[in-house]
Amino acid sequence: MKAATLHSYDEALTAPEFVTYEDVDDPEITRPSDVVVRIGGAGVCRTDLHIIEGVWRNHIDLSLPHIMGHENAGWVEAVGSGVESVKVGDPVICHPMVSGGHCLACRRGNDMHAADGDLPGITSDGGYADYLLTVERSLIKLPQSLAPKDVAPYTDAGLTAYRASKKAAGHLVPGEYCVIIGAGGLGHIGIQALAALCAAEIIVLDRSDLALGLAKECGAHHVVKADDGAHDAVMSITGGHGAEAVIDYVGEGNAIDQGLAMTRNGGFYYIVGYGGRVQIPAIDMIFSEKTIVGNLVGTYAELVELMALADRGLVTLATREYALAEANQALHDLHAGTVKGRAVLIP
Amino acid sequence: MKAATLHSYDEALTAPEFVTYEDVDDPEITRPSDVVVRIGGAGVCRTDLHIIEGVWRNHIDLSLPHIMGHENAGWVEAVGSGVESVKVGDPVICHPMVSGGHCLACRRGNDMHAADGDLPGITSDGGYADYLLTVERSLIKLPQSLAPKDVAPYTDAGLTAYRASKKAAGHLVPGEYCVIIGAGGLGHIGIQALAALCAAEIIVLDRSDLALGLAKECGAHHVVKADDGAHDAVMSITGGHGAEAVIDYVGEGNAIDQGLAMTRNGGFYYIVGYGGRVQIPAIDMIFSEKTIVGNLVGTYAELVELMALADRGLVTLATREYALAEANQALHDLHAGTVKGRAVLIP
Amino acid sequence: MKAATLHSYDEALTAPEFVTYEDVDDPEITRPSDVVVRIGGAGVCRTDLHIIEGVWRNHIDLSLPHIMGHENAGWVEAVGSGVESVKVGDPVICHPMVSGGHCLACRRGNDMHAADGDLPGITSDGGYADYLLTVERSLIKLPQSLAPKDVAPYTDAGLTAYRASKKAAGHLVPGEYCVIIGAGGLGHIGIQALAALCAAEIIVLDRSDLALGLAKECGAHHVVKADDGAHDAVMSITGGHGAEAVIDYVGEGNAIDQGLAMTRNGGFYYIVGYGGRVQIPAIDMIFSEKTIVGNLVGTYAELVELMALADRGLVTLATREYALAEANQALHDLHAGTVKGRAVLIP
Amino acid sequence: MKAATLHSYDEALTAPEFVTYEDVDDPEITRPSDVVVRIGGAGVCRTDLHIIEGVWRNHIDLSLPHIMGHENAGWVEAVGSGVESVKVGDPVICHPMVSGGHCLACRRGNDMHAADGDLPGITSDGGYADYLLTVERSLIKLPQSLAPKDVAPYTDAGLTAYRASKKAAGHLVPGEYCVIIGAGGLGHIGIQALAALCAAEIIVLDRSDLALGLAKECGAHHVVKADDGAHDAVMSITGGHGAEAVIDYVGEGNAIDQGLAMTRNGGFYYIVGYGGRVQIPAIDMIFSEKTIVGNLVGTYAELVELMALADRGLVTLATREYALAEANQALHDLHAGTVKGRAVLIP
Repeated sequence: MKAATLHSYDEALTAPEFVTYEDVDDPEITRPSDVVVRIGGAGVCRTDLHIIEGVWRNHIDLSLPHIMGHENAGWVEAVGSGVESVKVGDPVICHPMVSGGHCLACRRGNDMHAADGDLPGITSDGGYADYLLTVERSLIKLPQSLAPKDVAPYTDAGLTAYRASKKAAGHLVPGEYCVIIGAGGLGHIGIQALAALCAAEIIVLDRSDLALGLAKECGAHHVVKADDGAHDAVMSITGGHGAEAVIDYVGEGNAIDQGLAMTRNGGFYYIVGYGGRVQIPAIDMIFSEKTIVGNLVGTYAELVELMALADRGLVTLATREYALAEANQALHDLHAGTVKGRAVLIP
Repeated sequence: MKAATLHSYDEALTAPEFVTYEDVDDPEITRPSDVVVRIGGAGVCRTDLHIIEGVWRNHIDLSLPHIMGHENAGWVEAVGSGVESVKVGDPVICHPMVSGGHCLACRRGNDMHAADGDLPGITSDGGYADYLLTVERSLIKLPQSLAPKDVAPYTDAGLTAYRASKKAAGHLVPGEYCVIIGAGGLGHIGIQALAALCAAEIIVLDRSDLALGLAKECGAHHVVKADDGAHDAVMSITGGHGAEAVIDYVGEGNAIDQGLAMTRNGGFYYIVGYGGRVQIPAIDMIFSEKTIVGNLVGTYAELVELMALADRGLVTLATREYALAEANQALHDLHAGTVKGRAVLIP
Repeated sequence: MKAATLHSYDEALTAPEFVTYEDVDDPEITRPSDVVVRIGGAGVCRTDLHIIEGVWRNHIDLSLPHIMGHENAGWVEAVGSGVESVKVGDPVICHPMVSGGHCLACRRGNDMHAADGDLPGITSDGGYADYLLTVERSLIKLPQSLAPKDVAPYTDAGLTAYRASKKAAGHLVPGEYCVIIGAGGLGHIGIQALAALCAAEIIVLDRSDLALGLAKECGAHHVVKADDGAHDAVMSITGGHGAEAVIDYVGEGNAIDQGLAMTRNGGFYYIVGYGGRVQIPAIDMIFSEKTIVGNLVGTYAELVELMALADRGLVTLATREYALAEANQALHDLHAGTVKGRAVLIP
Repeated sequence: MKAATLHSYDEALTAPEFVTYEDVDDPEITRPSDVVVRIGGAGVCRTDLHIIEGVWRNHIDLSLPHIMGHENAGWVEAVGSGVESVKVGDPVICHPMVSGGHCLACRRGNDMHAADGDLPGITSDGGYADYLLTVERSLIKLPQSLAPKDVAPYTDAGLTAYRASKKAAGHLVPGEYCVIIGAGGLGHIGIQALAALCAAEIIVLDRSDLALGLAKECGAHHVVKADDGAHDAVMSITGGHGAEAVIDYVGEGNAIDQGLAMTRNGGFYYIVGYGGRVQIPAIDMIFSEKTIVGNLVGTYAELVELMALADRGLVTLATREYALAEANQALHDLHAGTVKGRAVLIP
């Protein structure tokens, strides 16, 4: 099959060609639960740039050559002998975690904390290719309303935003506020999901006027330029108390300190973006009784829920299509910040 | 002051005059926490007809003559020596429960289960009058967007519907269904509240096409005529499983049996309307693992939340105004079923 | 293999031989996820008597000849090609539900509500035999401290009691009360589990002094004879309010009415036993704001949790062993009420 | 009345007399909700030393001369005109927060987040005196089993530990672990509370063998010396995963980093002690999906719950009595670390 393969790291992200479009072996079914998916679309994520930079090789077991692509959707191409819930030809979206389903985390529905998890595109070969090897447990059948190439980015970017929104919606009641920091790829889905899941007033912070405009279209009730006046603006909107929930899709620069400071006493700060550090004196955590919540993608059932929102048009996603052969162009455009919406590779 | 006073029961509800518009003593402040509210509007509720019929005298301590009216809003007229949180002239809506605030239920926020509760209009004199005696703890200041006469019915009808919706929204996730039985006074608020609080698909049942039309305006995704085909229709919409939540605002006739049958295994049936009986074999409760939930008005904090929804226009309420002197007309119209929306008495 | 097989129903339960000890075909592995377990012990449950009586044939798909036995533990004898989490020789306890694991209920951890569930011993052949066919997903490896024959009854009787206790413990705080109706096979495990899971005061009702003595050993703080004075006794212990939780392991006779009446306003009545009917006027559900909760066995993860309690000695179970060839004796003893603890068949 | 009054700060804590035992004016009732309590015992807390050091004057509004003592219990001496729930002579324990009860936080039961809160002994005069001015809302009547001088320290030290334990018990299931860092004044109550509230296995870390001995008496299942091998020891006990909950009563030195590292992925780290800083890269919060929870004393209802545990002997507290005139001795002993249990001043 054809694939766009990573052969060497590039810390500076300056090479004209990050990946090589080439022929590789087709994936093969070896276990009863295996499924091969013909890729309909594979999302291009900032994490892919970090993989190219070599950032991740210290955190996880990753060897070259490597096929990236962890946001995948397509059609079932072949199934192992034990597969019962999908059949060849079914349109499917792929939960990013491949797991056996037998550890206690899986049995409780916490897929992302599987004891034996694999992440195709990150810890094994992914969807920058014609075909992807995954397992029955990772597949959700798509309704006719949703084409694989249009929904692929929901599997990571969308699911992560949905889960954070769902956690916050779990405690937000009418009359309360949620600050969302960053209205980019994740944030703009998070705004829509939050607006669908609760009646809190949504305040969106971003440095970009364009992003704030998008935020309003997505359902933000208040938008605030993320500059020196942002803290005062949020305090003013929230009656001087801060917001009962803050969801931080930036997670670097001064976003974390600012996000924690905007969190009301007794409230919750959700960290989704990364790059920076959480730093706060213990005494402040105690006086304020705040809670800081880490967020890791989402469960299979949550991806089913997100597909239900998408199916009803309550969440929509802007994508820009690239041929798989143009993967380098997509990666460079992402790096240059010129992709509007989410880049998706089409084999 | 003027009041519309009940002097005798009328089991058949046939008397031309249920209440007498007359001069009575003004209420007086005797305790530090007492507040007198000048009535801006008092909702006329079906419970008032039941009081006139004498239904309630066996359940609660109620003596004649009696001033009805348990859905009240207005302006603070006078305050006791200990009152700190409201001042004369403040526009306020009155939570229906008068409580001391010192029992454990109150300290946990469960106002309706106060050990020492009093319900003005039911267990003591209410708001069919120029003035109402209540306590500081029962008052919520209104924002400028909300006039007392427009919001009075939220205190009972609205709050009850809000609380049931909030309970259901607490477990409904995208892709799940909620059946609402009855799109009348409570139901049409319940639909709006549920749509604001979660992303479940809302199926509304009613015998009246007019009510189903209103249900659609309020946010119902599916409407079903409450006839012999209703069960099949709901099963069809829900993929054969039934709904994860059923909220029953009728609670008599075959609504209860039907509601329980439409509840999915593992789901929740909320009973709000009354008149009928819950009857189900224990073995069916066990096989189905359903939960049956009683619902009693709502807490003070929940009325604050409902006012936040109303302030933002997420919940609206149709009212029809009557002068206090025309209380009998309002009660007869309610009994005849000719009031569109909720009748409100204006002193 | 040898099995004790049911060849015909016996509504009156008067036949000397309910089941026939005989040679039958060994179960065979046909699917990748199949596992054959060599039985170490199979619990004998009142449900088995109901199956013999023919009560269940109207509720579920059950054909004769049938091998009963839904409470099973033993050792892995053979595994299908896809089995990864257990190996031949492992001591295991069998969750009673055989499910594919791919429906949404399973993905959320709600095994008992699987869309494709099978219950060996009830809907297919069970553990009154040398070997049992089940699936990888149903197996929990046992710690060395727990022998299969000693823990087999935990899979249904124990798990059901544990789940009800866990639900109640989820809302019971210190200073609150839980009434447990019935200190028999399920109840005595439920008392131990509740005492381990929360600090509520436990009040146990039973008609038998012997059972009340056992209840005290299991951790009951108060025991009450289940006669005409029981209601007053519970009201007296609970300061006149009733209990915040009532768990009813009887579910017939006057237990249900009594249990509901002993439930405090705002509290929860859990129905586990069956035979009777839940009957209550809607208005009483509303005034009292009670919740009635059905209970269906428990999840795989909950059985893991129960094994953790058993491993630490926080829950213990009395068993009486019978050879598999003496299955009729065990069934007759159970019917006669002469089994102390739980009967277990040993092949 | 007599009081032990602070007239000047002492940053080095070297003065022989921190406070002056002297005559001061009796507190007076000025508001309807006021209550004067005759002190039966006032706990001496490390926070009092921090007040003497002047640490708190920058954080809160505190002026000299000042009467310390925020852990108080005694008998009602006089009541304002609006007080209904207690009467003169009642033995009472004082919740540390004096609040009006009308803000939304109070109405939801979150007393510690009251908009108008006052903390006698910290922000106003406290219980190092014959009498204390507080309000009706702060008082809990004591059962006969509990003498005021024996329970006074529960109001802060005990309540803080109880609330943290209750939060953790809310998610800990059998088979899971909770690490408690520090078995001192708060920690030893926290261990008892946790053991009463759930069935998790409790691992206690402390530098002192004496404290670890106390931890075992309090219900710890495993004790670990808090030295360089502590991390490995906890990992070994927990099967290499870390604990689902860590409650940190130290909060300085390396306790925070160590506590976070011992928290299992998906688990909760509760910070109670202070002095240090929470510092963790955002990416680690995300990969691990941990949650960091601040903890601020506890609610009125939680103090009622703790009294229920104490009444039943499920939580006990060691105290050492000092006459009020010997307040300086008590403070010096606390500073020197020679008080076993909690020092309590008796007027």
